[in-house]
Amino acid sequence: MMRRDFLLGSATAGVAAVSATQRISAQEQTAGMPRLTPPEKPAELNLCLQWGAIPGTEMKEKLDFLEANGFAAVELPSGPWLFDNVEAMKKAMAGRRLFIATACGPSDFSYVEAEKRDAEVAKFLPQLEVLGALKSVGLILCPARSKPGLPFPELRDDFVNNTGKKLAEHAAKQGTSIVLEPLQRAETKFLRQVADGAAMARDIGPGCTVMGDFWHMSKEETSFMGAFLSAGKLLSHVHIASLKNRKVPGVDGPADNYVDGFKGLKLLGYRGAVSLEGGFPKEMDKTQLILNMVKLLREQWAMA
Amino acid sequence: MMRRDFLLGSATAGVAAVSATQRISAQEQTAGMPRLTPPEKPAELNLCLQWGAIPGTEMKEKLDFLEANGFAAVELPSGPWLFDNVEAMKKAMAGRRLFIATACGPSDFSYVEAEKRDAEVAKFLPQLEVLGALKSVGLILCPARSKPGLPFPELRDDFVNNTGKKLAEHAAKQGTSIVLEPLQRAETKFLRQVADGAAMARDIGPGCTVMGDFWHMSKEETSFMGAFLSAGKLLSHVHIASLKNRKVPGVDGPADNYVDGFKGLKLLGYRGAVSLEGGFPKEMDKTQLILNMVKLLREQWAMA
Repeated sequence: MMRRDFLLGSATAGVAAVSATQRISAQEQTAGMPRLTPPEKPAELNLCLQWGAIPGTEMKEKLDFLEANGFAAVELPSGPWLFDNVEAMKKAMAGRRLFIATACGPSDFSYVEAEKRDAEVAKFLPQLEVLGALKSVGLILCPARSKPGLPFPELRDDFVNNTGKKLAEHAAKQGTSIVLEPLQRAETKFLRQVADGAAMARDIGPGCTVMGDFWHMSKEETSFMGAFLSAGKLLSHVHIASLKNRKVPGVDGPADNYVDGFKGLKLLGYRGAVSLEGGFPKEMDKTQLILNMVKLLREQWAMA
Repeated sequence: MMRRDFLLGSATAGVAAVSATQRISAQEQTAGMPRLTPPEKPAELNLCLQWGAIPGTEMKEKLDFLEANGFAAVELPSGPWLFDNVEAMKKAMAGRRLFIATACGPSDFSYVEAEKRDAEVAKFLPQLEVLGALKSVGLILCPARSKPGLPFPELRDDFVNNTGKKLAEHAAKQGTSIVLEPLQRAETKFLRQVADGAAMARDIGPGCTVMGDFWHMSKEETSFMGAFLSAGKLLSHVHIASLKNRKVPGVDGPADNYVDGFKGLKLLGYRGAVSLEGGFPKEMDKTQLILNMVKLLREQWAMA
């Protein structure tokens, strides 16, 4: 039985306790609303930090901080760091209540020269193997940075059928994924919206997912909720930052409102990470800013 | 008081009538769902036909058919037809329970030559004056057809700041709008998704809105509901067709499922038109197909 049906049934069972006026008012309100199916499992707010943002210097110290302060996941740097740290990370993660969300770093698959695009693919293939071994959600990529060489229709076709496809197929074999990240127009004009990334992920097939970054979304999307619903089950990661200056959430005051986006995540039953990608104001205590962020995001999650 | 709060209150009032097990089950279900604010006014299913699809030959006959068969709106051809028929249409519409939704026809603002783009703008300016006089929602346009001349970033900038901006400003003065229509990739590679059209409409400003066409959306979107939510208050028109062969809804059987999209329209409180843009199987009775469509869409609207 759907939730709304159940509640309407309960409302009927409770008629004796409410006046006729209240009932009519409720009927008028609910008449306009759709029947929405709850997700199979409720969404979870799994907070996450990028490696460089975690207080501490040693690996154990950083992971201890996350566990002690209500985080559920960690985001790693992509590139050489992964190869240097895979074995130590496996050991350090053993027995913890943390998962490895994603690895993040720059990429560009828009070169006119096919051999340069192939070289970019070759660079990331072994990183996907490391991420698979770490049971990571995936490797964050944007197909093109600020000045792509290929025209957009050709670039999309090449990414969907060639470069992105090869990476996604390899990722799927390793039990991980490539995670397409839409960026704001100052960083790329190619993949700017979550719905577009979701359609590319669908077109590419297994091993390809999409993410939403609140900072980029605040510039490029008209609706946080709409964007997340378009990602649907393909949504594997979320970045978050303050919405005026791309710092830790909370420092930009009332602008840092994520409630509409969190409603979308709840409708989806999203259980991936929500990971800070933003800076810290230099004059303030970093740990305190992080704890403030945790409190703020939990409050807004409860409101959503 | 929000609807969900009210219903939860009613459910509590009705505890005597439901078992503890049922209550826990309902709490678990609702715990994961977001609090959604009902629209100020509930959405309406305002069914609409394009001029050429309405049975009959005379203007009065066509408008009588619409009123007699549960339609709320009419969609006109753009171009010379508008100028030839504006005065007769004003008279024929007087006192009817119908509104003039949109006018629809081909357009292309992607020419490399600025003077060709200017000529396209000049062609549509007087049509916007006619549509304003008819109290129409707007003029449907897609910035580029299948083979655009300008590269996409330049085309977007030129449409937002020049061609589309000029048309939108003129439309706003006439009390109407330009309505951006995303098309599937076989028809354009430029504007394919509702979220992109919504962002362009937002960037252009007053006088620009966006529409969703279920047929194109079925190819390009990953979520009907997500796409409509991204359009939000900028959504001014909807096209509908059967989802396998682009005919009248109903002829493609179970594929013709619009419930998820209708849920999105209900969440928005959408009160624009839902207009058939699709063909009719030749061997079948056109009027009967239209009546079947009305029944089907009303049933699915009630289910949404």
